[in-house]
Amino acid sequence: MTTTEPSPELSPDLQRVLDSVPDPGGVTTSDEVYAATDVDLEGFLAKPARASSSDLVPGVLVLHDWMGVIDHVEVRAQMLARLGYVALAGDVYGQGVRPSPEEAAGEAGKYYGDVALFRSRLLANLERLRAEPGVDPSRIAVMGYCFGGSGALELARAGADVAGVVSFHGGLGTGMPAEKGAVTAPLLVMTGAADPVVPDEAVVAFEDEMRAAEAPDWQVLSYSGVMHAFAVPGTDAPDHGARYDARADRRSWQQLEAFLAEVFA
Amino acid sequence: MTTTEPSPELSPDLQRVLDSVPDPGGVTTSDEVYAATDVDLEGFLAKPARASSSDLVPGVLVLHDWMGVIDHVEVRAQMLARLGYVALAGDVYGQGVRPSPEEAAGEAGKYYGDVALFRSRLLANLERLRAEPGVDPSRIAVMGYCFGGSGALELARAGADVAGVVSFHGGLGTGMPAEKGAVTAPLLVMTGAADPVVPDEAVVAFEDEMRAAEAPDWQVLSYSGVMHAFAVPGTDAPDHGARYDARADRRSWQQLEAFLAEVFA
Repeated sequence: MTTTEPSPELSPDLQRVLDSVPDPGGVTTSDEVYAATDVDLEGFLAKPARASSSDLVPGVLVLHDWMGVIDHVEVRAQMLARLGYVALAGDVYGQGVRPSPEEAAGEAGKYYGDVALFRSRLLANLERLRAEPGVDPSRIAVMGYCFGGSGALELARAGADVAGVVSFHGGLGTGMPAEKGAVTAPLLVMTGAADPVVPDEAVVAFEDEMRAAEAPDWQVLSYSGVMHAFAVPGTDAPDHGARYDARADRRSWQQLEAFLAEVFA
Repeated sequence: MTTTEPSPELSPDLQRVLDSVPDPGGVTTSDEVYAATDVDLEGFLAKPARASSSDLVPGVLVLHDWMGVIDHVEVRAQMLARLGYVALAGDVYGQGVRPSPEEAAGEAGKYYGDVALFRSRLLANLERLRAEPGVDPSRIAVMGYCFGGSGALELARAGADVAGVVSFHGGLGTGMPAEKGAVTAPLLVMTGAADPVVPDEAVVAFEDEMRAAEAPDWQVLSYSGVMHAFAVPGTDAPDHGARYDARADRRSWQQLEAFLAEVFA
């Protein structure tokens, strides 16, 4: 299915986020089904309407938070397409697996608890994007939110051959710490300094993991007063340490744009 | 004395750094003498040649590393003037006090050891910039390198009424931790994750100080593999934990530009 944006019925916050990136020439979007090693996945692809197949552009894989492929990551993919990139909002959970808020933690937990499975699903998404016509296979970046930020870092630990990896308030721990030399991509980690999921000790432990792995290029940016899920509009659970923060969202997106411009140059 | 740039005999690295910012309309520079409470200071002022006294522009105070006001901070001031700001490379040490490399640590140590004196010198520089014709007194930022990064943070702790404070590889400790509510300015701290002067524990201690002080807006950005003095061209003392890093210099300057654009908006 190919449609033109905007998606129907975005929340005002999400619409504002989408509108923060000017749209120079339209975006085409489609739902895409593709195979992982064990199940089919269903992602959401967004491409600049002006892209031609003879003109290769960078690709960005966007990894969802524990809610799966919903409007938030679809909006992010569209924002990236407005910037001229081909973006795939990838699917870790599998076609049709769209948890309710009550089910989401349990669904995400399956992958936190089985890093090999997590990585295989992530790689299937990465290879789907890399194979997309019009995408420059040598210029692929991966980014993700919360669970998807953890996923982006898992791809880095797995040695994925990508130009850059970005985590927005992702968990920084892993069941399979990076082996020495495994991480080759530049990393940008953005985290809330009031995020109980990622306390200071978790940041330092991650940095120590990257030092031990001799990861060649990472940056960690902490935002004061900012909680988990700061870049997911609509999040408002401060008692659980999670809250949307419009300023940190805006700043972190600006960081993303500058990082992508650098690693794709 | 008023001259037009460029300064004579910059090192190739420093010339490259200066040239990284396009010069749209020329810069005028002057050495300026002004009084602190105890001694006279001599700073270096850089202004956009196109600035008119009826057109107020933001001001940026640039604070030197332990070498004092030398070509490095003069170049930074000129870069800021090219961006349209009035910049003062301020002087903490006093007119004529220009230590040799062997004397520099001792000279800086006088101020680390007497925070009240440090702050009074810093404030004299800030007020000199604020009084400069053409400067918008409500839009002043402070930035500094190494010792000067510490100085910028001291001004924040002192409750200086500024729009923003930026530290490049500054020491993050202080003899006078911020009182609750004292820090009002947004802070941007950029630090090397391989800087022995600022180990992880010092970063966390600074963050805890800012949390306790309820500082409203701070960001800390760590660069992997990057040592002390990463933004001071010519530094090459890895055995002492200090080394210039062209990539971190470029990235941190880009951060500065975005931060200033935000806080002066």
